[in-house]
Amino acid sequence: MSSQTKFKKDKEIIAEYEAQIKEIRTQLVEQFKCLEQQSESRLQLLQDLQEFFRRKAEIELEYSRSLEKLAERFSSKIRSSREHQFKKDQYLLSPVNCWYLVLHQTRRESRDHATLNDIFMNNVIVRLSQISEDVIRLFKKSKEIGLQMHEELLKVTNELYTVMKTYHMYHAESISAESKLKEAEKQEEKQFNKAGELSMNLLRHAEDRPQRRSSVKKIEKMKEKRQAKYSENKLKCTKARNDYLLNLAATNAAISKYYIHDVSDLIDCCDLGFHASLARTFRTYLSAEYNLETSRHEGLDVIENAVDNLDSRSDKHTVMDMCNQVFCPPLKFEFQPHMGDEVCQVSAQQPVQTELLMRYHQLQSRLATLKIENEEVRKTLDATMQTLQDMLTVEDFDVSDAFQHSRSTESVKSAASETYMSKINIAKRRANQQETEMFYFTKFKEYVNGSNLITKLQAKHDLLKQTLGEGERAECGTTRIRGKLYRL
Amino acid sequence: MSSQTKFKKDKEIIAEYEAQIKEIRTQLVEQFKCLEQQSESRLQLLQDLQEFFRRKAEIELEYSRSLEKLAERFSSKIRSSREHQFKKDQYLLSPVNCWYLVLHQTRRESRDHATLNDIFMNNVIVRLSQISEDVIRLFKKSKEIGLQMHEELLKVTNELYTVMKTYHMYHAESISAESKLKEAEKQEEKQFNKAGELSMNLLRHAEDRPQRRSSVKKIEKMKEKRQAKYSENKLKCTKARNDYLLNLAATNAAISKYYIHDVSDLIDCCDLGFHASLARTFRTYLSAEYNLETSRHEGLDVIENAVDNLDSRSDKHTVMDMCNQVFCPPLKFEFQPHMGDEVCQVSAQQPVQTELLMRYHQLQSRLATLKIENEEVRKTLDATMQTLQDMLTVEDFDVSDAFQHSRSTESVKSAASETYMSKINIAKRRANQQETEMFYFTKFKEYVNGSNLITKLQAKHDLLKQTLGEGERAECGTTRIRGKLYRL
Repeated sequence: MSSQTKFKKDKEIIAEYEAQIKEIRTQLVEQFKCLEQQSESRLQLLQDLQEFFRRKAEIELEYSRSLEKLAERFSSKIRSSREHQFKKDQYLLSPVNCWYLVLHQTRRESRDHATLNDIFMNNVIVRLSQISEDVIRLFKKSKEIGLQMHEELLKVTNELYTVMKTYHMYHAESISAESKLKEAEKQEEKQFNKAGELSMNLLRHAEDRPQRRSSVKKIEKMKEKRQAKYSENKLKCTKARNDYLLNLAATNAAISKYYIHDVSDLIDCCDLGFHASLARTFRTYLSAEYNLETSRHEGLDVIENAVDNLDSRSDKHTVMDMCNQVFCPPLKFEFQPHMGDEVCQVSAQQPVQTELLMRYHQLQSRLATLKIENEEVRKTLDATMQTLQDMLTVEDFDVSDAFQHSRSTESVKSAASETYMSKINIAKRRANQQETEMFYFTKFKEYVNGSNLITKLQAKHDLLKQTLGEGERAECGTTRIRGKLYRL
Repeated sequence: MSSQTKFKKDKEIIAEYEAQIKEIRTQLVEQFKCLEQQSESRLQLLQDLQEFFRRKAEIELEYSRSLEKLAERFSSKIRSSREHQFKKDQYLLSPVNCWYLVLHQTRRESRDHATLNDIFMNNVIVRLSQISEDVIRLFKKSKEIGLQMHEELLKVTNELYTVMKTYHMYHAESISAESKLKEAEKQEEKQFNKAGELSMNLLRHAEDRPQRRSSVKKIEKMKEKRQAKYSENKLKCTKARNDYLLNLAATNAAISKYYIHDVSDLIDCCDLGFHASLARTFRTYLSAEYNLETSRHEGLDVIENAVDNLDSRSDKHTVMDMCNQVFCPPLKFEFQPHMGDEVCQVSAQQPVQTELLMRYHQLQSRLATLKIENEEVRKTLDATMQTLQDMLTVEDFDVSDAFQHSRSTESVKSAASETYMSKINIAKRRANQQETEMFYFTKFKEYVNGSNLITKLQAKHDLLKQTLGEGERAECGTTRIRGKLYRL
């Protein structure tokens, strides 16, 4: 049907096949290179991680030691001074308590960062080096299996080559047998045509017939022989073609299986446990960091609690208790009777009674005025104290802004210097605070003077009131003996 | 009533008064000392805190720089290698992603600790030095007010001394006038007794009478004079005593007020804002530390998320996509017809049909046996993989125990070396793991070999089935033209 020029020559077919095989071999080699490169990348990553954690561990240890040294420097100072001053914990003042807790937290941080070092060195790095071993071992084993897979593939394609060649051979033989048969058929036809002519010229050359009959027989015999040969070759060719076709299907199926499943399985063998082990390593690192954080948080909470309990009232009482002989009120001044004077009360009998009564009323009205005046001072004082308190308790301590991670790292640097703690703001606030404070002290002095005067006048007033009250009672009661006698 | 020996002498009273005053003066001086000492303790505390935070800031900066250097060392390495290998983010493998995030976290920690340094230096320390200024200024002002209070107290006690002395003087005069009056009364009595005798001897000495009468008159006059003097002195004494008693009450009230209220107010003046400002300083420190922690936590969460997303499947696909020309299946081997052979199908006509049919049945039963055998291998393989997976995903990464703060700091050191990560445990686990792994690989090879064979036989089987099926159909259908013609 198709002309001979369109047929691929044997050489072409072989060349094509070999090119295809070469391409597959190249891919297989490249696949190993890819797996090897992947393993090398992993080993490099693991090595980088080990180096990283080794150096990080060193940094944690340096940090831990610095913190330890820092805490110890102040703790030893406290120990030596404390033996002198604060032997008893009951006298621990709240700011000192905060300070001790800050030092305690520093020691805690020191220990935690030392633990971090320990975990990095003795756990994380050990894991990483084990994973490296695993990667090497698994790559080796996977390559072994891969090589076997490749051998198998090449074996299959070699077989294909062989059966293809066999098919080609038998087909060539089949063609050759066919052409020989055709040639015999042609000769037979020729003979047949001659026989036609012969029958027409039968009368002319009757003497030729015996020779011709033997020739026809010979040709027929040859044709039969060639027919048998052709059939035999055709069967061989059919069997070879069938074999070739079956092997072709098997080869394609094997190659397809390799590319679709086996390569993937091979990569899985290389990967075996890599991600899981790496995850566990990272989780160990995370566990350490999270635990450090939790510990840190607990410590900070203790400090925060102590800061919440900073209490000037309680500290004042502690100080006054500590030095109670200095702050306990002295004995009252007692009336000192002169030379056995038996009168030890204000005497309100006539003739001094009128004068005392007048003095009492004067005191009463003076006190009323003074109290109103001093109450005004007190109100101003309270308002000023409130203003001061507002200034002193302003919630200016939130530094979250400084920890916002914006794109540029530059913005971090100026975090604390731009806002509330800028020099201008500080100066303004402090000037304002000190002005208020000054006013408070002025008012406080005024108030103390006023209340001192009130206290003294009130004491006199109260004594007079009592005396005069008793005098009045005495007057309207029964007759009494002389003033100097009616009390011890 | 009481004998003269029991009276306190003037000197005694004065001495007692002076002792009492001296005691109060001593107390007042001691109170100032106490306040001063309190202020000095505070200044010392503030200085310690400043030193502490200055040194801590330095430690934070060192730590920050070490972390920065560490991150930069690996980041620059990545930048240079990345330009060659991983230009596109779509090819970022999940372990590499974790590694980048660990580096990112390191930079974040570096920045946060630098921020801590900044906040300690430019905020906490500034606050502390301001509080020191405040303590000094407030102590000065409070001492000023305290001195005024003390002066007032001494003024009051001086007044008391004066009025007491006045009372003593008038009382002494009153006693003297009384004794003089008593003497006059005695003389009068004597005169009266003489007058009694006189009346008995009246007849004997009648000539004496005029002289005696003038003497009696004289005595009476003197007695009256002394009576008036005594009354005058007694009034003066009463007034002086009243004054003394009123001043005594005022003095005691003033002293009491000072000890009960004023000293406390004075301490409050010294304390003014100290606790509040210190609390704000500590809260700034706490805010910085808490924020550092929050930032750290956020970063760790990002890493944890990346660790959760460690995915060998997706990485495998990424790698295969990256090198897709290496992993894409090659073209199928095509049937290569020889020299225009037009038969390109398995030929199942007689005489090969019987043989093919036999071969087909052989394949069928062989495949059934192989599949059963290989399924058994697959089950063992799966079970082994499950065992391996269990080993590989064991949750051995919790290191919380290392951060338990027991009493002794010694116990921290061995945290990671005692338990799961001890050398014996590691060795045991690894031996176990590798043994299982070895078994897995053996079974895997067995399975691959089996399935390779199955694939090839199955391909042949399927082709035969198709051919024979068609052959059967052809046989029981209409008469067909020669095999080599009935397909293109």
